[in-house]
Amino acid sequence: MPVFLDTTSPEFESAFQALLSAKREDSPDVDATVAQIIDDVRSRGDAAVIELTAKFDRLELTPDTLAFSAEEIDVAVAQVSDTDRTALELAADRIRAYHEKQMPEDHQWTDATGATLGWRWSAVSAAGLYVPGGLASYPSSVLMNAVPAKVAGVERLAIAVPTPDRQVNPLVLLAARLSGVDEIYRIGGAQAIAALAYGTASIAPVDKITGPGNAFVAAAKRRVFGKVGIDMIAGPSEILVIADKDNDPDWIALDLLSQAEHDESAQSILITDDAAFGQAVTQAVEKRLETLQRRVIAGASWRDYGAVITVRDLDEAAALSNRIAPEHLELCVADPVVLSEKTIHAGAIFLGQYTPEAIGDYVGGPNHVLPTARSARFSSGLSVMEFLKRTTLSQMTPEALRAIGPAAEQLAQSESLEAHGLSVTARLARLND
Amino acid sequence: MPVFLDTTSPEFESAFQALLSAKREDSPDVDATVAQIIDDVRSRGDAAVIELTAKFDRLELTPDTLAFSAEEIDVAVAQVSDTDRTALELAADRIRAYHEKQMPEDHQWTDATGATLGWRWSAVSAAGLYVPGGLASYPSSVLMNAVPAKVAGVERLAIAVPTPDRQVNPLVLLAARLSGVDEIYRIGGAQAIAALAYGTASIAPVDKITGPGNAFVAAAKRRVFGKVGIDMIAGPSEILVIADKDNDPDWIALDLLSQAEHDESAQSILITDDAAFGQAVTQAVEKRLETLQRRVIAGASWRDYGAVITVRDLDEAAALSNRIAPEHLELCVADPVVLSEKTIHAGAIFLGQYTPEAIGDYVGGPNHVLPTARSARFSSGLSVMEFLKRTTLSQMTPEALRAIGPAAEQLAQSESLEAHGLSVTARLARLND
Repeated sequence: MPVFLDTTSPEFESAFQALLSAKREDSPDVDATVAQIIDDVRSRGDAAVIELTAKFDRLELTPDTLAFSAEEIDVAVAQVSDTDRTALELAADRIRAYHEKQMPEDHQWTDATGATLGWRWSAVSAAGLYVPGGLASYPSSVLMNAVPAKVAGVERLAIAVPTPDRQVNPLVLLAARLSGVDEIYRIGGAQAIAALAYGTASIAPVDKITGPGNAFVAAAKRRVFGKVGIDMIAGPSEILVIADKDNDPDWIALDLLSQAEHDESAQSILITDDAAFGQAVTQAVEKRLETLQRRVIAGASWRDYGAVITVRDLDEAAALSNRIAPEHLELCVADPVVLSEKTIHAGAIFLGQYTPEAIGDYVGGPNHVLPTARSARFSSGLSVMEFLKRTTLSQMTPEALRAIGPAAEQLAQSESLEAHGLSVTARLARLND
Repeated sequence: MPVFLDTTSPEFESAFQALLSAKREDSPDVDATVAQIIDDVRSRGDAAVIELTAKFDRLELTPDTLAFSAEEIDVAVAQVSDTDRTALELAADRIRAYHEKQMPEDHQWTDATGATLGWRWSAVSAAGLYVPGGLASYPSSVLMNAVPAKVAGVERLAIAVPTPDRQVNPLVLLAARLSGVDEIYRIGGAQAIAALAYGTASIAPVDKITGPGNAFVAAAKRRVFGKVGIDMIAGPSEILVIADKDNDPDWIALDLLSQAEHDESAQSILITDDAAFGQAVTQAVEKRLETLQRRVIAGASWRDYGAVITVRDLDEAAALSNRIAPEHLELCVADPVVLSEKTIHAGAIFLGQYTPEAIGDYVGGPNHVLPTARSARFSSGLSVMEFLKRTTLSQMTPEALRAIGPAAEQLAQSESLEAHGLSVTARLARLND
């Protein structure tokens, strides 16, 4: 059974605190193993990657077969049904259109002193995307990572996707092709992250690595951070639905279950201002759990981490939502726009009863890689920004240096950084000659 | 002596590779100590912070004196000279004006299906800034961290600045006041980071921690990452100057030394298309090193990590610059704007001979917290963005759901996520009734 909380109860605050601080994930400590694998790939390159792939994925590769050939991709992609292809194309187009609007602008101006100031955005030259193999090999994740990279202008985009026992998901290859991915390597685990970060004879190094992965991949990303940029290390998925009584309990139940079915550690929370509606949703969840394909996973998640919170009013719901800072927030209320202005800390907000979260996973347009574990308090979902960096620009004229140089000299002196000051003094001396 | 490289030499590539991969920093491994300190602060709160401050800073505090009082700040700030105050105010004003222009805009639109999409930026609620004590206690760093946070709209901004043996830098307190900092704690080290991240009875927790610090602070920031957001972990400072022969060698020498004087691990590199000019700068550096206050530090940095590279032409200089991806890049050439369009990977670019890098450290306006150790390939300097996060928004109408819902159902099916698909199916069934 999920937990039932009620803000009018005297025990509410301590129960809510317990819900907030509950640890849902026990990551195995694989750091020592991962460190060894990275060292091995750094020192032996292709040979190490090939050996580790034989060992973990039961797949014999050579330097020439590390990457899929264009022909191999053609053959795989040809297996995709027309309906799947059309759906994936619609998703890619919508994700591309949304992310194109995110592109930030360069800006430059001249201020009153005559100084020209500004900044310029530029793309990371090369990026690598990790795509898990097996069950969690999601074509939608390929689109969500690769499309923003290409929109940002990344020149060289490489994917690493393990193919254990030669299992390949043709939709993953099609998603890569639709996104404009340049290279696809059939390698995985920490060895793939090491190869992307440090390079081998056959795999050129990249500057940034994004994408989800298991504990080995996450540990490897942490270790190569600094050498390359990485995206967030995502935790288990979460949804918070705020719903009033004017909703179909079954719709809300399915929205809660569509997080729960991801992972036994996923979390689905309903906040409602109507206790009876909360009960109705709970019953609808139980009914759906009788037949759902992934009922074992979804049932465990709902039982262990699910919660139904009854509040006095929607303002209270918004306040609790801000403390939870959910990854996904669904607002199924009469005026979702007004409520959304009060729910400040959330990765993505889905407004109104016709916007199930699953739309955002696939075809809405916004990214589905979002901050988990309350990190929406301080971070954002994946966007073109992860594949861009900003260079600041400044150019002084002699007049500008005369105007602001003396303050720099003064501050350099107060910080005892003499050369800093002298670099200004020497120039001003000439200008004042 | 610095290294001298020449791109026409057959050994150039291997020597340049060695320069790129040289490790300039040996961070002591303090992780175990830091883990203990964090655990101690998490379990004992104020008491642990007070004990550790007594031990490391020889300063006896109580819960009531952990923070500076307004009166204490008044007294300290009154000691600042008018010239220092005026310089600091000019710096704060210019940094504020620059960072105000960085504020990103919210955006929302309705697409052809009737779906409303967009995003909204919001500030991190509470941020903590670490300010080193002692020698490296720089008021300019307070401005560079605190002003962007306040421009972004951070409501509660706390500073931790250790005051070993009661030493306080009044300029640091003035910089905090000019930036609108709300709380100033006289604590430092890993215990300060732990207190900011997890909170104590007297110090409320924050959501984001930025600012430089020693190995203990850096290790603590890494450890609390996830619980709170952190900024980059900065390495030793670097400058690359690209200069043609039409420069005063002494100006360029001072620019190189203004990085070298920061730290024995700092790195200053000159690239020039005129070997004789390179020699002249080297001589000017040696001459300045005879009298410079921080000649021991600057001399060690220049001797151990300095480099002078002679190139055939400025295109070659730009290509090398992109491989170095310098934190600071000075372009002292006839047409710095044209050259700057070719130097893509750099934290900050200073254009022309009247823009010494020191201007950017204090009063230019752009931030002086910049990516080091070649990370300008994939990351940017500090900005208002570090204190903002983006929430994506989507709202489907019935028509929009009819238009794109089936593609979501299809993709959910292909990923074997049944509840995802059903959450759309159930709604479409009603709509199609």
